[in-house]
Amino acid sequence: MTTQQLIEQINIKKSFLCVGLDVDLNKIPQHFLALEDPIFEFNKAIIDATHDLAVAYKPNTAFFEAYGIKGWRSLQKTINYINENYPDVFTIADAKRGDIGNTSSMYAKAFFEDLNFDSITVAPYMGKDSVEPFLAFENKHTIMLALTSNEGAFDFQTLDTDGKELYKRVLETSKTWKNSENLMYVVGATKAEYFTEIRKIVPDSFLLVPGVGAQGGSLSEVCKYGMNANVGLLINSSRGIIYASKDVDFADKAREEALKIQQEMAAILESK
Amino acid sequence: MTTQQLIEQINIKKSFLCVGLDVDLNKIPQHFLALEDPIFEFNKAIIDATHDLAVAYKPNTAFFEAYGIKGWRSLQKTINYINENYPDVFTIADAKRGDIGNTSSMYAKAFFEDLNFDSITVAPYMGKDSVEPFLAFENKHTIMLALTSNEGAFDFQTLDTDGKELYKRVLETSKTWKNSENLMYVVGATKAEYFTEIRKIVPDSFLLVPGVGAQGGSLSEVCKYGMNANVGLLINSSRGIIYASKDVDFADKAREEALKIQQEMAAILESK
Repeated sequence: MTTQQLIEQINIKKSFLCVGLDVDLNKIPQHFLALEDPIFEFNKAIIDATHDLAVAYKPNTAFFEAYGIKGWRSLQKTINYINENYPDVFTIADAKRGDIGNTSSMYAKAFFEDLNFDSITVAPYMGKDSVEPFLAFENKHTIMLALTSNEGAFDFQTLDTDGKELYKRVLETSKTWKNSENLMYVVGATKAEYFTEIRKIVPDSFLLVPGVGAQGGSLSEVCKYGMNANVGLLINSSRGIIYASKDVDFADKAREEALKIQQEMAAILESK
Repeated sequence: MTTQQLIEQINIKKSFLCVGLDVDLNKIPQHFLALEDPIFEFNKAIIDATHDLAVAYKPNTAFFEAYGIKGWRSLQKTINYINENYPDVFTIADAKRGDIGNTSSMYAKAFFEDLNFDSITVAPYMGKDSVEPFLAFENKHTIMLALTSNEGAFDFQTLDTDGKELYKRVLETSKTWKNSENLMYVVGATKAEYFTEIRKIVPDSFLLVPGVGAQGGSLSEVCKYGMNANVGLLINSSRGIIYASKDVDFADKAREEALKIQQEMAAILESK
């Protein structure tokens, strides 16, 4: 999917919601456990119930890998289901990958070709040659960690590096990399005031924003400081939507939660 | 495996060699392609040919994930084969994982429990709560990126952070984390002179050292500056060993290359 097509979908759906698929078998309705592939069946139900309200889905690879081969099969079925039934949806492999060049090329092949995701999250620590192999794929997007929403974000990301915080230097440096137009960035919602500074460095880039809802961030604050002319935001919610209920009504409740966020987003887009 | 058991194995085998299993189907003897699981069969042959010369094997997850479910099955068969046949070998999942706490817990479960690796490589960018979930596993080891051997290492890892390079701060900070005795570190061999400084910060930790051979690092230089009283080094070689020949004699040639390194290691240990 191109960035332009993503922007069109945001305008059509009046939504920039991304639903995170972090499926923990202990937290889903227990009748799923009798099925052959509980994770896929749960994801399918969530996607069917929310696809007109969300522009993106973000399966978190850890929650699949924890179940080995079976989990990897659930991941493949989930992405295939989205691509076949809802091709207008933007897909994100939340994988936080990053390694030396020839290894990153293999990860890119795994997620962009074998699984056919539109995008993948990557970690910046190993620098340019660990990220550029992902950027080489046309119409695929590489979402690099900049400032995350967890407590540990303050261990290294905000360290002062010659008068500038590390995450700002990560943003700046990445703009010099080949095919950097294929970059997006992860910026946590728990720090809305940081968005003003971030937008000075990457005014046009899409930002994937976790931390709204369960992790405490405010949607209106993030939009106030982080939105650009093309919206430029994908706001992720995982647990708040997919675990809205553990009962048989879980899909309806997930839709209700997604609808609340989508309506708030529609109002924000309207007021722009 | 405990650290003490690893040290014992180093002394028994007179080796601190780690063989990296980065299997690219284009680079292995082509008769393997007719087999049902070429990656596993190739790994098995390499392991059988080198197990008395190496103390560790390091499958690189990217090279399995690139083949989807089939690749994940090859990974599972490879680690099971090692655990069943050579239980004295230390196993490393070279996965470079790292995410917020509950996600890192799922990765730890995937690699430490489901696949039963002794250790996993992780990235430090997200800080304490992204790494501590791995450290919580008893007799499992978490090998964190400090200073890598690629060109991009100089993009961020060596940035000056208030008078100290970032990788040094990563080392120092990680020592304050819970169960930090379960940490090892990745330090690239292409920068042997850095080992002196690194040993001032982490005198007792094991260091996993890529970059000897194909990437240009010198074994004797690394040992000169990086070895401690318990050896404290695992020197990785991947391509130099596993792709020593593309012909039917590939396993013999792999053994020859491993033996050269092991003999050099034995001489270094002898001279200590």
